[in-house]
Amino acid sequence: MENLKESFLPQLQATYGFDDVSILPGLSTLDPKDVDTSVKIGKSKLKIPIIASAMDSAVDVNFASRLSKVGSMGVLNLEGLQTKYENPTEAFNKITSCNSQEAIKVIQKFYAEPIKEELVSLRVQELKNKGIDAAVSVTPANAERLGFLARDAGADVIFIQATVISSNHRGKISLNLKDFIARIEIPVVLGNCVTQDVAYELMQTGPAGILVGIGPGAACTTRAVTGVGVGQVTATMSCCKARDVHFEKTGKYVSIITDGGMRKGGEISKAIASGADAVMLGSCFSGLKETPGEGYHWGMATQDPNLPRGTRVSVKNMVELEKLFFGPSDRDDGTLNLIGGLKNSMGMVGAINIQEMQKATVVHCPSLKDEGKHYQFVDGVGQAK
Amino acid sequence: MENLKESFLPQLQATYGFDDVSILPGLSTLDPKDVDTSVKIGKSKLKIPIIASAMDSAVDVNFASRLSKVGSMGVLNLEGLQTKYENPTEAFNKITSCNSQEAIKVIQKFYAEPIKEELVSLRVQELKNKGIDAAVSVTPANAERLGFLARDAGADVIFIQATVISSNHRGKISLNLKDFIARIEIPVVLGNCVTQDVAYELMQTGPAGILVGIGPGAACTTRAVTGVGVGQVTATMSCCKARDVHFEKTGKYVSIITDGGMRKGGEISKAIASGADAVMLGSCFSGLKETPGEGYHWGMATQDPNLPRGTRVSVKNMVELEKLFFGPSDRDDGTLNLIGGLKNSMGMVGAINIQEMQKATVVHCPSLKDEGKHYQFVDGVGQAK
Amino acid sequence: MENLKESFLPQLQATYGFDDVSILPGLSTLDPKDVDTSVKIGKSKLKIPIIASAMDSAVDVNFASRLSKVGSMGVLNLEGLQTKYENPTEAFNKITSCNSQEAIKVIQKFYAEPIKEELVSLRVQELKNKGIDAAVSVTPANAERLGFLARDAGADVIFIQATVISSNHRGKISLNLKDFIARIEIPVVLGNCVTQDVAYELMQTGPAGILVGIGPGAACTTRAVTGVGVGQVTATMSCCKARDVHFEKTGKYVSIITDGGMRKGGEISKAIASGADAVMLGSCFSGLKETPGEGYHWGMATQDPNLPRGTRVSVKNMVELEKLFFGPSDRDDGTLNLIGGLKNSMGMVGAINIQEMQKATVVHCPSLKDEGKHYQFVDGVGQAK
Amino acid sequence: MENLKESFLPQLQATYGFDDVSILPGLSTLDPKDVDTSVKIGKSKLKIPIIASAMDSAVDVNFASRLSKVGSMGVLNLEGLQTKYENPTEAFNKITSCNSQEAIKVIQKFYAEPIKEELVSLRVQELKNKGIDAAVSVTPANAERLGFLARDAGADVIFIQATVISSNHRGKISLNLKDFIARIEIPVVLGNCVTQDVAYELMQTGPAGILVGIGPGAACTTRAVTGVGVGQVTATMSCCKARDVHFEKTGKYVSIITDGGMRKGGEISKAIASGADAVMLGSCFSGLKETPGEGYHWGMATQDPNLPRGTRVSVKNMVELEKLFFGPSDRDDGTLNLIGGLKNSMGMVGAINIQEMQKATVVHCPSLKDEGKHYQFVDGVGQAK
Repeated sequence: MENLKESFLPQLQATYGFDDVSILPGLSTLDPKDVDTSVKIGKSKLKIPIIASAMDSAVDVNFASRLSKVGSMGVLNLEGLQTKYENPTEAFNKITSCNSQEAIKVIQKFYAEPIKEELVSLRVQELKNKGIDAAVSVTPANAERLGFLARDAGADVIFIQATVISSNHRGKISLNLKDFIARIEIPVVLGNCVTQDVAYELMQTGPAGILVGIGPGAACTTRAVTGVGVGQVTATMSCCKARDVHFEKTGKYVSIITDGGMRKGGEISKAIASGADAVMLGSCFSGLKETPGEGYHWGMATQDPNLPRGTRVSVKNMVELEKLFFGPSDRDDGTLNLIGGLKNSMGMVGAINIQEMQKATVVHCPSLKDEGKHYQFVDGVGQAK
Repeated sequence: MENLKESFLPQLQATYGFDDVSILPGLSTLDPKDVDTSVKIGKSKLKIPIIASAMDSAVDVNFASRLSKVGSMGVLNLEGLQTKYENPTEAFNKITSCNSQEAIKVIQKFYAEPIKEELVSLRVQELKNKGIDAAVSVTPANAERLGFLARDAGADVIFIQATVISSNHRGKISLNLKDFIARIEIPVVLGNCVTQDVAYELMQTGPAGILVGIGPGAACTTRAVTGVGVGQVTATMSCCKARDVHFEKTGKYVSIITDGGMRKGGEISKAIASGADAVMLGSCFSGLKETPGEGYHWGMATQDPNLPRGTRVSVKNMVELEKLFFGPSDRDDGTLNLIGGLKNSMGMVGAINIQEMQKATVVHCPSLKDEGKHYQFVDGVGQAK
Repeated sequence: MENLKESFLPQLQATYGFDDVSILPGLSTLDPKDVDTSVKIGKSKLKIPIIASAMDSAVDVNFASRLSKVGSMGVLNLEGLQTKYENPTEAFNKITSCNSQEAIKVIQKFYAEPIKEELVSLRVQELKNKGIDAAVSVTPANAERLGFLARDAGADVIFIQATVISSNHRGKISLNLKDFIARIEIPVVLGNCVTQDVAYELMQTGPAGILVGIGPGAACTTRAVTGVGVGQVTATMSCCKARDVHFEKTGKYVSIITDGGMRKGGEISKAIASGADAVMLGSCFSGLKETPGEGYHWGMATQDPNLPRGTRVSVKNMVELEKLFFGPSDRDDGTLNLIGGLKNSMGMVGAINIQEMQKATVVHCPSLKDEGKHYQFVDGVGQAK
Repeated sequence: MENLKESFLPQLQATYGFDDVSILPGLSTLDPKDVDTSVKIGKSKLKIPIIASAMDSAVDVNFASRLSKVGSMGVLNLEGLQTKYENPTEAFNKITSCNSQEAIKVIQKFYAEPIKEELVSLRVQELKNKGIDAAVSVTPANAERLGFLARDAGADVIFIQATVISSNHRGKISLNLKDFIARIEIPVVLGNCVTQDVAYELMQTGPAGILVGIGPGAACTTRAVTGVGVGQVTATMSCCKARDVHFEKTGKYVSIITDGGMRKGGEISKAIASGADAVMLGSCFSGLKETPGEGYHWGMATQDPNLPRGTRVSVKNMVELEKLFFGPSDRDDGTLNLIGGLKNSMGMVGAINIQEMQKATVVHCPSLKDEGKHYQFVDGVGQAK
């Protein structure tokens, strides 16, 4: 039994996803009604720390307005159907009505249409006409061209998103993030990244926030295709460490927004207990009555049409936004009344606000064995359901 | 292969549930018939260390009496159907006969009825008329009002239960536990908690016992909804550490009662080997012939009707109490003859009583791979069943 | 993120079962045909390190003779059907032909018949008449009465087996193992145990061998019922440590026999690589053409008829013994040609005999993810089978 | 709670497979189009670091030529159907058209035919006639006889493969690897091994490359039958350590080729991020339109016909080679556009070439919980798909 030839068998560090962890209750408790869930992202104040991601299936101008009214924020994708088609109804109909074999090809076809600059300006103006903060999203490659168009049309915050972003991209179309952020003069949120070192480098460029997460979302297959990815709890904790170090050194606070892999109140609570300021959700919204996805959710088109990394997923969840956020819930799986779940979690932790919740203790606690283990007796034989 | 950037990837501490561990046999062995399983909770002496939880589906006056006769104890819920309705028969019938889609709504409807104070006194008197110790349960919010009513009617021990309790609740309706326990003058059991620090703080308020467990039970969905929870083995060990430190400092012994997640003899043995003095079971009883649940089990109504955290679960197990506790068992899954299982476990550990069993060695031993792995040959092909 | 309150969250030691580990190949390799698998248990020389356990479904006089001829050994249960009935045919027929609901009750009925002392002597004489070493099994409670009967009838080795054995049993019927072994003067094998300390204590009583394993077998439900158990790899390694320490101190070598949980060549190889001298198999044999189980396998009756811990399991594997041990195998799951599997394993490790194989390196290597992962393409969609 | 008797419970070292790990993105990023995936194995330059294994179902002369044209390499098995039959069409037809029960026997029958030396020379000449590097495979037992035949016919590189190889084989037919490699004078690749020590010893014999992997492939059941095996990530990292130490000491670079268990772009990326220079794939190719397997894949016949370790597996994946390597992919599971996946991975890591990719950070990140977790709503009930 020579089990200790240590040099032969490298021991890897563990990383954690939401299903791997749970939150410890705190020394004191609070009435959930008394907790404050508000956060500030850039100059925008949100009553609830949830942002809808720039997915065509989730956010159009109308739904961004609905979100704003309840204290959330929706990010409009400036490189999707809304800016490729003045009236994107046909595209939505075709994408959501084709059968699943055709889906990827149909999506690829409609996304092949070029972006129209006039529609970029128009969509931002429509958001502003609703009287809300206009949050929009562009990719690094198009940030220079579309970002300033959006700003000039009145955008309040710009999200620059790629599957993986770094402040040191070695390629033809390399965006100088520091220069861009300085020139555009409105708050910029950058993403996505998953490690402390990249997050810290990004913070040197002056963003208002950082999006955390590669590959965990419902319409994202990054890990199978490329092998790259980190569990969201580890990624959030790592990037929050960068935020805290950066704040200590510079006095500038960069918000951390965990993006992807959440659908339940418990998962949102875990992200914030891991240190996040807010979370970005996508597929939760696509199945609502008010969103354009009509029960389907799909990933953003990638730059490389030969490597599809966005599938169409069925997410039929035909309730209204208020029920998703505030209940009442007639389900017990945590997918409705997300804010009620978060507030109850904060109450058990004894966290009066998001800042206190970020300091909760998170432990490794595999849920497959404990969570949702319902025993049932069928003809006298007990079974874990 | 730079795998050791330790500061980037926080390594979380592991916590354990029942399925994760097993008990090591001891240096000496005992005849199971010779072991003593008795414990004292408050002033009540139990021959067997099992308490029936204050679930409407499990405990009414008659079943509390049955339990008492075999050496166990049942806790009557003073905020459920028994105190909302003089004759709760219709409510039970409707809840147990509706289909599963309707269940949560039906439960919510019947629990909307207010508690009647005269029924609180009446139920306690009925328990005393049976000649047994009257154990009753209230929530912190109602403890002041209902607790003294119950005491005056003759209650012997009061359980104050919330999903999570702390000695330092920051809310409008904050019960001063220390003051309450001093004034009520009968033993009080507090719950639920899962960590050493909270348990230790609670012990400063003078309780006779502490209930351990958040979210692991059959009708509890706390973890999915809020992300909060700890495996029962870790929670029990942590709180027992608090008990031992508290006893060493003050000479006062506070019983630790593991509550939730157990249904098999092996799980009860593991809880006690983790340090518990007794266990609290719920769904085991709801399916018995004698209990009002008629084969169903449901969680207590929460304070927040918009956030249901109690589902109705089918637990048909139509045997009698004696068979559940003492066998003979015609099943081999550990769900019958719970006391026989515990006594055999104590015999293998060599523990003559509960105090010795609490010192057993518990190890990490994932059961999914070893426990209950029955090979079967089907047409010559071996399969793990 | 306060994740390091170490005192609150005890970290348990890991234990391992066969599915958790794999064997590392060695620096040199060997031709499988050149390896020697022989071992000595007591005074009996075995060409292959496999012993058939004292299960009624597996070993009768005829099958013990068959095993002996190929270099293995079968242990005859002296407290089962063979000594309760002069002609146990009816009992076997009823047990193997009843439906599965009735099985436990039918088994309990036939095992209620008392043991007949004259049949104990008769069965041992029948074994001797076959010209083979007579290996027999008794429980501690009956060792004094039946053990000497068996010895006087010519038994060569006696197995004293209980679910858990210790050298320090505190009960009415306590067998003084040291005294018994000294008086009976033939080799004695004791079992079962799982930890170094108990194995070491047992070795002080003078046994020829120790059986290792609690709860892992195909017809054993110890863990669900009592919570007691240890993975077989850990148990074997621990008890082998005791053997090595004991040998170093006393010069007496006590064989370690891993008992239970094996059915494949790979599992037998892992037991020996963990340090075992031999393995005891049960259900493998019950399904053979030659054994009385007729495709079923069941546990030994326990002392406590109210706590059945032996189920009837279907193990139809209708090949002959030679094919089980030596192939040729027309299956690829490791359940046939057990000795071929072991020899190939020894060849890859470079172990010329069992003593070298015991020094192989065993590592943690969860098999659920790697072993037996066969990809299949169904209509162009890849799936792990 | 005596949980810390460390000496009793040996703690084993962890090993990792592809599903256990993921790759961290790097500090800088790259445009996937800019990365260089070329490697050199022996004297052969490959534009893509993928080699087709010497499986009859995958590589014949025509397919080796196809592979060479796109920058890959195919190894022809000199001990299979191609050298047993001048026209192996009937053998292929029978093996791929029989039903699955018969498959092992049919395979055994056709492989019983002896190798014809003139066909060995013929096949190598056919490869050379295609104008490509001729890569061929022999077992250690036949290396002396067939290796020189192949060399004389023009072979460019010889793979000597056994399930497990060592430089110190103690058997009748022991090949002196060092002597053989010196005499044959063309590059030799040796395999398979999984540990640093064996890899290092093998490197002393002068090979151009080492194949890493025992038991993880789609048609390999080594682990169930023998218990021997190591997860591919650990095996690759260990052997790469040997390569680096050997290079530092001698200045000679021995390529590490991870062999088996990969089918997705993400898995290939993980092998290289673990340190490999190239990967060897088998079943990926057997299901292509151009290969002789006609949708089936089977293991090489073992030396011991009584111990089948190669099954026939259905791998129908009827696309063309270019689509497998370069896409476009109409699937999102990573099984098509393997090079696109690798290049995207390298872009996210910021690795401009294979040497930089070998230095990526690999972490433990169980994929069962995070990868491919697609939520679906069915009738309003969310389910993980």
